[in-house]
Amino acid sequence: MPTIKDVAQKAGVSIATVSRFLNGSGYVSEEVKLKLIQVINELGYKRKYTAHILASRKKRKVAMVISERIKQLLNTDIGYFYKVIVESIQQNAETFHFEISLLDLRRVEKFDGYLLIGSDALEQDVQEYKRLGKVVLVDHHVEGLMVDSVVSAGADAATFLVNRFLEMGKKRIIHVHGPLKYYGFRDRYQGYVNTMQKYGLLPITFEYDDLHDDIEPVVKKILANYEPDVIFCSNDVIALRVMEKLKAFGYEIPKKISVVGFDDIPEAERLGLTTFHVDKYEMGVTAVRRLYDLLVGHNVQPRKICLHAYFVKRNSSL
Amino acid sequence: MPTIKDVAQKAGVSIATVSRFLNGSGYVSEEVKLKLIQVINELGYKRKYTAHILASRKKRKVAMVISERIKQLLNTDIGYFYKVIVESIQQNAETFHFEISLLDLRRVEKFDGYLLIGSDALEQDVQEYKRLGKVVLVDHHVEGLMVDSVVSAGADAATFLVNRFLEMGKKRIIHVHGPLKYYGFRDRYQGYVNTMQKYGLLPITFEYDDLHDDIEPVVKKILANYEPDVIFCSNDVIALRVMEKLKAFGYEIPKKISVVGFDDIPEAERLGLTTFHVDKYEMGVTAVRRLYDLLVGHNVQPRKICLHAYFVKRNSSL
Repeated sequence: MPTIKDVAQKAGVSIATVSRFLNGSGYVSEEVKLKLIQVINELGYKRKYTAHILASRKKRKVAMVISERIKQLLNTDIGYFYKVIVESIQQNAETFHFEISLLDLRRVEKFDGYLLIGSDALEQDVQEYKRLGKVVLVDHHVEGLMVDSVVSAGADAATFLVNRFLEMGKKRIIHVHGPLKYYGFRDRYQGYVNTMQKYGLLPITFEYDDLHDDIEPVVKKILANYEPDVIFCSNDVIALRVMEKLKAFGYEIPKKISVVGFDDIPEAERLGLTTFHVDKYEMGVTAVRRLYDLLVGHNVQPRKICLHAYFVKRNSSL
Repeated sequence: MPTIKDVAQKAGVSIATVSRFLNGSGYVSEEVKLKLIQVINELGYKRKYTAHILASRKKRKVAMVISERIKQLLNTDIGYFYKVIVESIQQNAETFHFEISLLDLRRVEKFDGYLLIGSDALEQDVQEYKRLGKVVLVDHHVEGLMVDSVVSAGADAATFLVNRFLEMGKKRIIHVHGPLKYYGFRDRYQGYVNTMQKYGLLPITFEYDDLHDDIEPVVKKILANYEPDVIFCSNDVIALRVMEKLKAFGYEIPKKISVVGFDDIPEAERLGLTTFHVDKYEMGVTAVRRLYDLLVGHNVQPRKICLHAYFVKRNSSL
């Protein structure tokens, strides 16, 4: 059986280079890559995946970085989403020999790795932690920064939603979204806008902040100016409030208007809200696995992992 | 040490449910998830990751599905990108006990898994293969379909590019893109358009098909109507042709105009083209790993994995 040494010798490069190439753990020029692909073919070299995965049993110090906003949310219904992610990370950390601590956003302390949870971290925060250790953003993404992130595939969900209702002949689809400075809301918003435009339809959007705003004026404006078939909301909290208000105004749901949320919090199930189910637990697992790869130097090319949400039809929509 | 049976008993669910939850291998209601999270905490149950990864040594039949267009491209310079992906899949397949075959797109044959390479597969093609086995799209994505895919993070690269040149005071950034029916071109296009609009700048875009069109009229139009600081092209083939034409017209590169490509094919390195380096080999590795997870039923929640490309500054740009 040919060894990694044989590959290195025949390709005229160091063993370290071959290892970097095979593990995706650092830069190898396009020319050397080509050469290595060829040599590996010629020699019939085979790598063992198992060895590669079991390489490290070392304890690693990992911080879950959480903003003041999210810390407060964790004690409310709205914070359910983050609560599950935090639990998931804590439970799965053990498997990878992580020692997990909580760290306040903007407090700078040295850890091996950081899981930055939620959309409050700014570009400079991310850069700061990246100088100290490996970083994975969880339910957050900064466009153009090329740092690892795990998010839900909100744009795809929005596209699915628009496609689904257009196929049913329901064209008047309105989007009520949270503040667009948050990645998740922005992503769903863009998916909605792009898909409406693709079909030559006018995107109609309203911004609503579920922490500070009253839903009534938003619902009133929608009803006064449009005859909505569907109100697609960027999260369940907004959708539940919209639904309540529509009912109070005497609108039949879903006969007259369909309401759809995003996240699938327990209230959505209890109150019959159609929504997109986001696997929050899997987000935590995925973030932990990704951080592990970064810490052991496997497949380090940064990536954005978008977990698809799936449509759960309940009573609030056709 | 508590076992999976203890967890199931205490939570009042079946062992199969606990296993589905832990492996992410199927639907578990939000309520049961919450219960399990709690019980696992109380009992201090710990899962072994190693067992989970080593579970299967079974041989699996996997098809690399390739369109006629890509098959023809594989014999040309333009096809370099796909050539490396195909090689990478073949070399890494062994590690996961895959038996790899080539299959023409639209030929329907039963395999355990399918890697659909390139952007020619339509929604109905994907659905067809999905009925027969597990599917991962490689360098392709269908918005709203929620099927696993591995792509390069083109929108992020475009955002990086616009940010970078705006910071240098270079505002007249033009985008020359391939046909937007292909996902990769569409993704970079949207990243460019969104980022320009974010800064209140007018996106200026030209479509150019590198297989059929002459580049001269495009370059002439750009020069006649705009005074470009930067021409960002959706791939290296386009960028190299733009660069050649600009030189023929007597423009100094990069002093007068910067030209940037995408992909990093060997010609880019040879001819000094600034571009985004796409790790094609890693795309293959990632697709194989993902298909393996799907085949053994681990973390099956579908996902879109976007590998970040990184900026390689050479002589064609500031």
